Amino acid sequence: MIQLEALYKISYGLYIVTSGDRNQGNGFVSNTVFQVTSQPQRFAVCCNKDNYSASFIQQFKAFAVSILAQDTSAELIGKFGYKSGREMNKMTDVKVIFKETNVPIVLDGSLAFFECKLVDVFDVGTHWIFIGELVSAEIVDDTGQPLTYAYYREVKKGFSPKNAPTYIDQSKIETKTENAMSKKFKCPICGYIYDEAEEKVKFSDLPDDWVCPVCGSEKSEFIEIS
Amino acid sequence: MIQLEALYKISYGLYIVTSGDRNQGNGFVSNTVFQVTSQPQRFAVCCNKDNYSASFIQQFKAFAVSILAQDTSAELIGKFGYKSGREMNKMTDVKVIFKETNVPIVLDGSLAFFECKLVDVFDVGTHWIFIGELVSAEIVDDTGQPLTYAYYREVKKGFSPKNAPTYIDQSKIETKTENAMSKKFKCPICGYIYDEAEEKVKFSDLPDDWVCPVCGSEKSEFIEIS
Repeated sequence: MIQLEALYKISYGLYIVTSGDRNQGNGFVSNTVFQVTSQPQRFAVCCNKDNYSASFIQQFKAFAVSILAQDTSAELIGKFGYKSGREMNKMTDVKVIFKETNVPIVLDGSLAFFECKLVDVFDVGTHWIFIGELVSAEIVDDTGQPLTYAYYREVKKGFSPKNAPTYIDQSKIETKTENAMSKKFKCPICGYIYDEAEEKVKFSDLPDDWVCPVCGSEKSEFIEIS
Repeated sequence: MIQLEALYKISYGLYIVTSGDRNQGNGFVSNTVFQVTSQPQRFAVCCNKDNYSASFIQQFKAFAVSILAQDTSAELIGKFGYKSGREMNKMTDVKVIFKETNVPIVLDGSLAFFECKLVDVFDVGTHWIFIGELVSAEIVDDTGQPLTYAYYREVKKGFSPKNAPTYIDQSKIETKTENAMSKKFKCPICGYIYDEAEEKVKFSDLPDDWVCPVCGSEKSEFIEIS
């Protein structure tokens, strides 16, 4: 028996993982960042092989991790989590700094960051596990709480994008009995579903300047799916 | 610059990872369990090479993960997190079940569990990263909250044991100015430090049946360290 809901009990944080140099950079939202050894201090980051950032990490042999705060904006997560650096420069209009490795480190929405030089890469099928050794670590804001994946899912109503290790096809999750009159609207950018039965507010009654709580897409972009 | 406190902002859950069969079994407390791919559903578990459990996972080519609840007892964490299966049978007096892989799955203190067959092993120095493919997953208790490492550290005052990927030598962390008259007492089993300045209660004033909040060791076992 496989109850996919059981996997939702696993705890993750949310991070922006970046690589590049002072001229070019890219990054993606990751929930799989974790320490693997303490002597020396090494960290693992899981990254879809199709992610544009994967080629940056391999080219620049270093990566930085910005640990996101609970109040990180939907726009920042939308930009780094649901858009590709192949189509835009994600570093535009984002506050970044450069430290020992010279990779761009995102400060917006971050509680702390650390950077690693790449020491190993493992193939796990659709994803790489990048192993990095700690070079620097700093606190940016010691007052906020880290954004966890549970908070993102439950409070911010976010989903894993298709490239994430934790992607779950929502159509495979059993749905509760719903009001047959209610409708659902899907964000075409990030996949967020606005469910009238759950929200108790008709989609048409939402203000025109309402935006997707996950990625910041406009209301007019949503598509009715039921 | 390396500010070790920055690394505390990384979010982890806490889990008991087990392996073995119906005749013998062992397990350890881990905070590094995470999904690495969704097609197929594969998970990574980081395990110190010295851990007795590492040999079980390699021998039985499978492991189970019990996702711990916030109210998991200090005794259960103490047993699986700070004691070795080389000296005791950890499965004694613990509620376990067996599913598809036949490894013992711990139900005590668990919100959910899943089991994986071992498909790969990576060497990251002092630790192995075991990669497993999902075989079964079930919810045990859908009402509780998952125990996070942040909660364990802040509320339960727990520390990573020396074999953990996230072990930090507390002597390297800057300490706040303290009352020179206050004393500290260390648990010889798990390393928990009772700090009179922080707790505002003298160690000698604690009741005789007080136990280590992390591993359940008795008050009389504590050693004065300052």
